[in-house]
Amino acid sequence: MLNYGIVGYGYWGPNLTRVFNQAAGSKVVAVADQLAANRAKVKGLYPAIDVYSEASELIADTRIDAVAIATPISTHYALATAALEAGKHVIVEKPLCASSDDAARLVDLAARRNLQILVDHTFVYTGAVRKMNEVVTANKLGRVLYYDSIRINLGLYQQDMNVIWDLVVHDLAILSSVMPRRPEAVSAIYADPLKTGVPGIAYVTLFYPDNVVAHMHASWLAPVKIRQVVLGGDKSMIVYDDLNPSEKIRIYDKGVELAPSPEQAYALKVEYRHGDMLAPQVESREALAVMADHANHCFDKNIAPITSGEVGMRIVRLLELADRSAQRNGEVLRVEAW
Amino acid sequence: MLNYGIVGYGYWGPNLTRVFNQAAGSKVVAVADQLAANRAKVKGLYPAIDVYSEASELIADTRIDAVAIATPISTHYALATAALEAGKHVIVEKPLCASSDDAARLVDLAARRNLQILVDHTFVYTGAVRKMNEVVTANKLGRVLYYDSIRINLGLYQQDMNVIWDLVVHDLAILSSVMPRRPEAVSAIYADPLKTGVPGIAYVTLFYPDNVVAHMHASWLAPVKIRQVVLGGDKSMIVYDDLNPSEKIRIYDKGVELAPSPEQAYALKVEYRHGDMLAPQVESREALAVMADHANHCFDKNIAPITSGEVGMRIVRLLELADRSAQRNGEVLRVEAW
Amino acid sequence: MLNYGIVGYGYWGPNLTRVFNQAAGSKVVAVADQLAANRAKVKGLYPAIDVYSEASELIADTRIDAVAIATPISTHYALATAALEAGKHVIVEKPLCASSDDAARLVDLAARRNLQILVDHTFVYTGAVRKMNEVVTANKLGRVLYYDSIRINLGLYQQDMNVIWDLVVHDLAILSSVMPRRPEAVSAIYADPLKTGVPGIAYVTLFYPDNVVAHMHASWLAPVKIRQVVLGGDKSMIVYDDLNPSEKIRIYDKGVELAPSPEQAYALKVEYRHGDMLAPQVESREALAVMADHANHCFDKNIAPITSGEVGMRIVRLLELADRSAQRNGEVLRVEAW
Amino acid sequence: MLNYGIVGYGYWGPNLTRVFNQAAGSKVVAVADQLAANRAKVKGLYPAIDVYSEASELIADTRIDAVAIATPISTHYALATAALEAGKHVIVEKPLCASSDDAARLVDLAARRNLQILVDHTFVYTGAVRKMNEVVTANKLGRVLYYDSIRINLGLYQQDMNVIWDLVVHDLAILSSVMPRRPEAVSAIYADPLKTGVPGIAYVTLFYPDNVVAHMHASWLAPVKIRQVVLGGDKSMIVYDDLNPSEKIRIYDKGVELAPSPEQAYALKVEYRHGDMLAPQVESREALAVMADHANHCFDKNIAPITSGEVGMRIVRLLELADRSAQRNGEVLRVEAW
Repeated sequence: MLNYGIVGYGYWGPNLTRVFNQAAGSKVVAVADQLAANRAKVKGLYPAIDVYSEASELIADTRIDAVAIATPISTHYALATAALEAGKHVIVEKPLCASSDDAARLVDLAARRNLQILVDHTFVYTGAVRKMNEVVTANKLGRVLYYDSIRINLGLYQQDMNVIWDLVVHDLAILSSVMPRRPEAVSAIYADPLKTGVPGIAYVTLFYPDNVVAHMHASWLAPVKIRQVVLGGDKSMIVYDDLNPSEKIRIYDKGVELAPSPEQAYALKVEYRHGDMLAPQVESREALAVMADHANHCFDKNIAPITSGEVGMRIVRLLELADRSAQRNGEVLRVEAW
Repeated sequence: MLNYGIVGYGYWGPNLTRVFNQAAGSKVVAVADQLAANRAKVKGLYPAIDVYSEASELIADTRIDAVAIATPISTHYALATAALEAGKHVIVEKPLCASSDDAARLVDLAARRNLQILVDHTFVYTGAVRKMNEVVTANKLGRVLYYDSIRINLGLYQQDMNVIWDLVVHDLAILSSVMPRRPEAVSAIYADPLKTGVPGIAYVTLFYPDNVVAHMHASWLAPVKIRQVVLGGDKSMIVYDDLNPSEKIRIYDKGVELAPSPEQAYALKVEYRHGDMLAPQVESREALAVMADHANHCFDKNIAPITSGEVGMRIVRLLELADRSAQRNGEVLRVEAW
Repeated sequence: MLNYGIVGYGYWGPNLTRVFNQAAGSKVVAVADQLAANRAKVKGLYPAIDVYSEASELIADTRIDAVAIATPISTHYALATAALEAGKHVIVEKPLCASSDDAARLVDLAARRNLQILVDHTFVYTGAVRKMNEVVTANKLGRVLYYDSIRINLGLYQQDMNVIWDLVVHDLAILSSVMPRRPEAVSAIYADPLKTGVPGIAYVTLFYPDNVVAHMHASWLAPVKIRQVVLGGDKSMIVYDDLNPSEKIRIYDKGVELAPSPEQAYALKVEYRHGDMLAPQVESREALAVMADHANHCFDKNIAPITSGEVGMRIVRLLELADRSAQRNGEVLRVEAW
Repeated sequence: MLNYGIVGYGYWGPNLTRVFNQAAGSKVVAVADQLAANRAKVKGLYPAIDVYSEASELIADTRIDAVAIATPISTHYALATAALEAGKHVIVEKPLCASSDDAARLVDLAARRNLQILVDHTFVYTGAVRKMNEVVTANKLGRVLYYDSIRINLGLYQQDMNVIWDLVVHDLAILSSVMPRRPEAVSAIYADPLKTGVPGIAYVTLFYPDNVVAHMHASWLAPVKIRQVVLGGDKSMIVYDDLNPSEKIRIYDKGVELAPSPEQAYALKVEYRHGDMLAPQVESREALAVMADHANHCFDKNIAPITSGEVGMRIVRLLELADRSAQRNGEVLRVEAW
């Protein structure tokens, strides 16, 4: 039985508190929040949970095995460092932190202390993404050719992050599960047609070996909401529509291959195969509860979670590179470290 | 009554023959095709139309007022030049020709001869695009913020053109109608994950003044067919789904504006307005027949068509720049000439 | 400020408690439930609300102006009678009660005591149904020709009600708003292909004057979930898809009329007019909160709610007739009382 | 090689002429039509085909092995009788003829002459219906529980047939393939809200043994076009959407069964099983060409087609009963003969 402390009881903290309290292998023993109103909410729902006004008090609580951090991104690095130094495993809301240098320090610190970091890229724990991972792992897609994503709607403009950090981060997490290879380079474009100073439209491309690309389109300025990923392989292709209530994943048994000799002079020797479409049943259990079980398992065995600190660090690295490329008008930047 | 000669009776020539023969202001008097089988088809359907085996014979036919060219792109320049020099108006299948230098020569030649060129960018004559043009012209969108297009499916790989010349050309034509301003720069990326030598996936971005962007995604490698354009304005936004049989155009009465003072510290001063969605009835008359009437009108009055040689030349220029940018890994290239 | 007592804190009671507690003109002073666990939930969330184990105690509480009954249908009649006799306005979960004779007695009792009954047919208070009502009232549909509804999915089989009482009841409520005329007759068919003793498929038809019909298809045995109503008029037609998150109501500007003289011998003189489709913005406020405000207003002014006891009684009457017709193999039964 | 004669070259005759001329085992040697303009069309397209102004001339043509009748329904009986008496196999446009007595006479005559009748219920030959038949035959649905169909749109009102004969006829044909059992009874309702004298809305129910039902909703008065069939079994369920260009058939791996003992007092012992959805690839070959091959095969071997005269007769019988029931307000009528 792991004892958790939750830092931050604003938007996401209540969810973390609920799932770690309900999970089989854990309970929440304390929550820290600077606002008295938030602490009162905790006591109303969970009289048995202690509350602190300062995160440092919670981190000093010796009953606590793991600390979950649900505060603004600018505070992640200092809080996670303190928790790790106090000998606790750490869960951090995505993204891991605001710079890849900080991220590397956290990964290093955790390794030295023999502790685990889990970054809460919740998408990775959804039934849909786990199904995609399963299909890719079973080699049903064949060679993966491309990843293409659209995440658009009328979104809330935020001061402290642009649309890349808000939306593309989800694709980078999904990629860490279904296309975990290291991309060679990043190119990104943004647009700020409203001239707010915070780009609301972004196009990000990752270049992989063997001519494979991942492209992501994110926008806070679209009249319709779309959350769609296409993952194309040479044996079959997946369309993942996160807004479809009953058929999130569709696997098209469509293949493509290069024929040995083209019959038609003007057409290339590319041949398609058409087949059935399967929409497999996707597990509907709450992704956050799946994450909580995984965290409990990994912290208990002291093994790296699938959204480890290292995975979270790579995502921060790609976000940084995308930002830098966009500031340089789409210049292609190599992914040096990984 | 204008007399037309049609050069090429392969894929598109039969359609041109049909519409110019049926149009109120024109008839087809001759068709040229090097294949006897194609000439026989013409005689079977239209006994009154003369056939030639050589385009030069048709161009020399003094009865003919206008020549429509429906042959492979590599032949467009020479054929159009010959027809213009023979004093005929010219219709050319899109794209106008294979290089912008040739295109400029054709435009120049037509001007000197006081003749018109119409490039058959058929999309511009569809009810859907005309409705978009009408909405933009009536200023119902407000300030246009962005154009975003997706044209994907399992497409036929072709030897003589990549996916930009095959599919993005349609968006460039639509843009000539709904966002006719000169873009400042072009950036494009392609991918050839099948390693055919002909890129089957492309992402093309046009940068306009005032932070406005147009982005186009084209692919011959997608398991589902999508033909969707979003045109966003600050007063309303249009979604154009060309595959929707009954509601091709949807106008969302959704607006966005910068509020004078933000109330919430973390949120920017961007405010949305939500309203009705209108799917206007769109004229369903065949676009090619609309084009034929327009050609007849413009050639009769000797005025420039909406898809004039100049428009076609600009499209070729952008296609060239996109190709060049893609070959240079997405380098941003300025649109110098226009 | 009206004081409410809520009887029953099982499935629906918590919602009623919440909305009447939050509404501007009311607060909840007491909740009655026979289960100690349910009473504990009330005290946990609302320490200020009193709890009773017996409904009779609550009804005897002199502070209470109105009683909301959220108990199984078999108990509605006795509880509503007791509350009315104690001088309280009454809200009853739909359907009003299990027999039309009991319903008539309740309506009569309320009238004699000068009190109001509101039956919680929540659908009537949704933005979508209110929009339909508004369109019909503004005569934008013209003459209403038919109502057609489909409510199907894999539904929970229940011991105490068949699929007519479970699903068709919603259509009868919507009809009370958009086609309030008295139907002349009822015919219904059911099917129990699983032989459970409780019909899981039903087809119900209401016959109105002037050849107008309403037809409802309800099923607990369908693999897909559909909630769709078509309301056809001779000037325009509405499609109401309750599962569409963004466009619940679509108004088709399509008309139909009898032409004075048919031109084609084989075709009748029916002519169609085609036009735009409008998906108006529909108010998204929680329907139950709208109902609570309406209840407070009606009880305060002592005027009949739009889902009055009389409306609820008519719905019970039609449910009874549908059951009887179905038991007689679809025999057409006249609607005698109204 | 079978020689065909086609009677009637109006709407459907040209299609029959084309497919029997192209099929491997047949050619068309003559077409009869009373209109000179129609005969001229035949000669224009098929110089080798002879034309007659009178059907009797064609029927007397001794080269002809089979006669296809594509004339108004009122003429079917006399023409088919004449063709059978002249020793020819017969193809008749659906429905076979206007009365079940006439239909029985045709079936009887064909049997006595040892000839075949094929009724052109083209739907039965589509890839989608053949796939449904295949799934049912392989027992993948388990016990079939119900059939539910919706065929609605703004349809052409016709003088010589109501909406049952126009649209429900398709469902009766599909049922002959996927639920070929004899229904026990028929009930139908129609509505004529426009008061044209020709009902434009119909609801038809067929009652089968074991509480199984088939229900069909047909309308010429709906603002949207829907062509959807649900076929429910206890092991899986099919949704057939004829307007879906890429996924006409969806097979839901959802089952239902009666559990031996219910755990919850209020819920019945009905249990659902949820699984994947499969949209199998459906053959896209033109249904009429499939029918032509089948006709050639059956006439060559002198065996009964799947849409034999007997099948066509049963469909006419059900259409008649539906009409009669509707005239009697939905009275349930037994299916006596079969």
